[in-house]
Amino acid sequence: MSEVQVDDLQAMLTKAQRAQRRLARVPMQVRNQALAVMARILREDAAEIDRANQVDLARAEQSALAPGLIKRLALTPTKVEGLARSLESLIGLADPIGRGEGRRVLPNGLILETIRVPLGVIGLIFESRPGVTVEAGGLAIKSGNAILLRGGREAQGSIRALSEAWHRALREVGLDEDLVQCLEDPDRRLAEGLMHLTGLDLLIPRGGQGLIATVVREATVPVIETGIGNCHLYVDADADLAMGLRVLVDGKLGNPAVCNALETLLVHRSVAPEFLPRAYDRLSQHGVVFHGDPASRALVPDMLIADEADYREEYLGLEIAVKVVDSLDAALEHIERYGSKHSEAIITQSYPSGQAFLERVDAACVYWNASTRFSDGFEFGLGAEVGISTQKLHARGPMGLEALTTWKTIAYGEGQTRDIP
Amino acid sequence: MSEVQVDDLQAMLTKAQRAQRRLARVPMQVRNQALAVMARILREDAAEIDRANQVDLARAEQSALAPGLIKRLALTPTKVEGLARSLESLIGLADPIGRGEGRRVLPNGLILETIRVPLGVIGLIFESRPGVTVEAGGLAIKSGNAILLRGGREAQGSIRALSEAWHRALREVGLDEDLVQCLEDPDRRLAEGLMHLTGLDLLIPRGGQGLIATVVREATVPVIETGIGNCHLYVDADADLAMGLRVLVDGKLGNPAVCNALETLLVHRSVAPEFLPRAYDRLSQHGVVFHGDPASRALVPDMLIADEADYREEYLGLEIAVKVVDSLDAALEHIERYGSKHSEAIITQSYPSGQAFLERVDAACVYWNASTRFSDGFEFGLGAEVGISTQKLHARGPMGLEALTTWKTIAYGEGQTRDIP
Repeated sequence: MSEVQVDDLQAMLTKAQRAQRRLARVPMQVRNQALAVMARILREDAAEIDRANQVDLARAEQSALAPGLIKRLALTPTKVEGLARSLESLIGLADPIGRGEGRRVLPNGLILETIRVPLGVIGLIFESRPGVTVEAGGLAIKSGNAILLRGGREAQGSIRALSEAWHRALREVGLDEDLVQCLEDPDRRLAEGLMHLTGLDLLIPRGGQGLIATVVREATVPVIETGIGNCHLYVDADADLAMGLRVLVDGKLGNPAVCNALETLLVHRSVAPEFLPRAYDRLSQHGVVFHGDPASRALVPDMLIADEADYREEYLGLEIAVKVVDSLDAALEHIERYGSKHSEAIITQSYPSGQAFLERVDAACVYWNASTRFSDGFEFGLGAEVGISTQKLHARGPMGLEALTTWKTIAYGEGQTRDIP
Repeated sequence: MSEVQVDDLQAMLTKAQRAQRRLARVPMQVRNQALAVMARILREDAAEIDRANQVDLARAEQSALAPGLIKRLALTPTKVEGLARSLESLIGLADPIGRGEGRRVLPNGLILETIRVPLGVIGLIFESRPGVTVEAGGLAIKSGNAILLRGGREAQGSIRALSEAWHRALREVGLDEDLVQCLEDPDRRLAEGLMHLTGLDLLIPRGGQGLIATVVREATVPVIETGIGNCHLYVDADADLAMGLRVLVDGKLGNPAVCNALETLLVHRSVAPEFLPRAYDRLSQHGVVFHGDPASRALVPDMLIADEADYREEYLGLEIAVKVVDSLDAALEHIERYGSKHSEAIITQSYPSGQAFLERVDAACVYWNASTRFSDGFEFGLGAEVGISTQKLHARGPMGLEALTTWKTIAYGEGQTRDIP
């Protein structure tokens, strides 16, 4: 991997397209073999990968990167073993390509068959976590695609080590190195180049809100928006409050930096006097800062005052917005107004309230008596994920293998014509 | 329908969203009823619709609109009857929403169910054919969506009549008029407004290459690209030449103005001497102009000289580009280079050639011994179509009801948490 220029992108895409066309004709066995060999190489090279990562980490600490980012940048031996296992779990999954989605015979005898095929060449822009190189590469290869990876500058050494591991693995099984290409992009020019790389079949931005918004606004290639998660927990009048507390703690403290973490707590007025003080005590002892509306602050005066921005934005940290609502409808309206259509949860023992919530909330994942933290490709049994789509087209929620496929209709005829006999 | 301003679009969207949320909770019976009533009103109002269309036609003739466009603008009583029948055929189709796409129980007992739901509010930009108001409106209502329709200026009177018919039909069954809103847009400003109308769930441009390219380049809302069809017919060495001729004639003469018509003929060198003169005789007697490469012109000197643009662009009329190729591989390379991934066909009796073509051509629809003209929602049994997607995300090929849906995952739990016990 060496530094490339925007002008080189077209050549990289052409090489990726050529490699992908060959990959699409290779049986699943070979694609799985590539993943198995990559898993082996990751274990063999664990020490080398660690050394590369230490260099990245040292540089990140010198440049005073935020602690959250440094944590995500770290590629510990445990994490590398996790990546190897994630590749092995992909091997066990059914082949996402070639599968028929329905065969029909038209009245004139023409046989139509719709089959799953790879998308082609996928671009991924990501930040910090170098392990994405392995997970996204694995998903791409298994689903018959090539991938162009543009990682964050802070992870370049680690990404380079993982990229070289991919190239060795691909060569070893007789596949083309060009299937996984990593772009070094110190000044974001290549990220911009990817947004306008005509012929790229899909571009996925993973990272902060700013990056994602830029890609959605600027890109002329097909994009799937990921990862903004302004998730709500609504504790209903008929909630089991102990359950509500557990789910709240899981959603806020399990991993506050990720998109499926809770950002806002909505509580029905009738249970707020009992629930809110307990919620406050439990979370504030872990350092969580509360931003409440007047009704919440009347019950727990220590809360800060919540303003519009508190309801609108993701904290991605140890803060939570709180609002007391008069009804399920009011909770639904709040979620409709401020939610990001990612993951939303209700806690209730009431059948009509739970059903109404599942039906009326417009989001990728809607939970009844469970934590929003389950919105995750691995938890969903997809093996891994290339991101969590918060848009409605093509893929919604955690994106695994199937999100990287499309389909085509093949037709077997005997000379059928439509207008001319 | 009165003229609206860009600033009004947000208010129209809000009204559409509100109406759509109510529609999503209405059983299929009521949605079907709306289509049935609309079909009845179309028949009742046929004379009135015809009068409105005559005014549009007269104005179009005065302004010297191209004959092809005038033909598409005409809304004859036969066409209106066809629209009514197309609504009735939609009634007979299964409900695209609510359907489960798989239920899984996670190891911790959490039940995940993925269900089809409407997209929400769809925008459609189209030209000339006023009947799109009925077809797209019918698909939208049946699939639980609201739709904002921005038709061509030349069809405004006809669209207004059809829009009023929709509003009466929706009112009669107790649904909201705001589900189908037509935008009068004499200067394209509303079309531009739709491209940036945050909250719009999908924008589909239907029309000329210029319109589609602009929407794909400019839009910040999710878009599905439709309709550019640079379709090829490859007559292989092992072709049944009589069949090849029939399929060629169907593809070129059936309806030359549409996207699934043939634009380029590729012929294997070994059969070119026999096939090309016959193809030329047959098509040129109907006025088709041939643009050939040197090898074709050596066989049929009357052909014009084909240049790069002949292979690259859609004629959408009585012209065809021709090229003699040395092999199936050469045909595949040509299609890969110039094709628009819409519809491609091979004529061959050879099993390996046919299979290789089906496998290796990257297009929405790939035909073996059949006409590309079958790429059509009605022919495919979808009842109607909102367009033919030439992109790979979300929908590919003719888009019917399912293309207007997305899905969400609903989860039934008993208090499951991921990280906190």
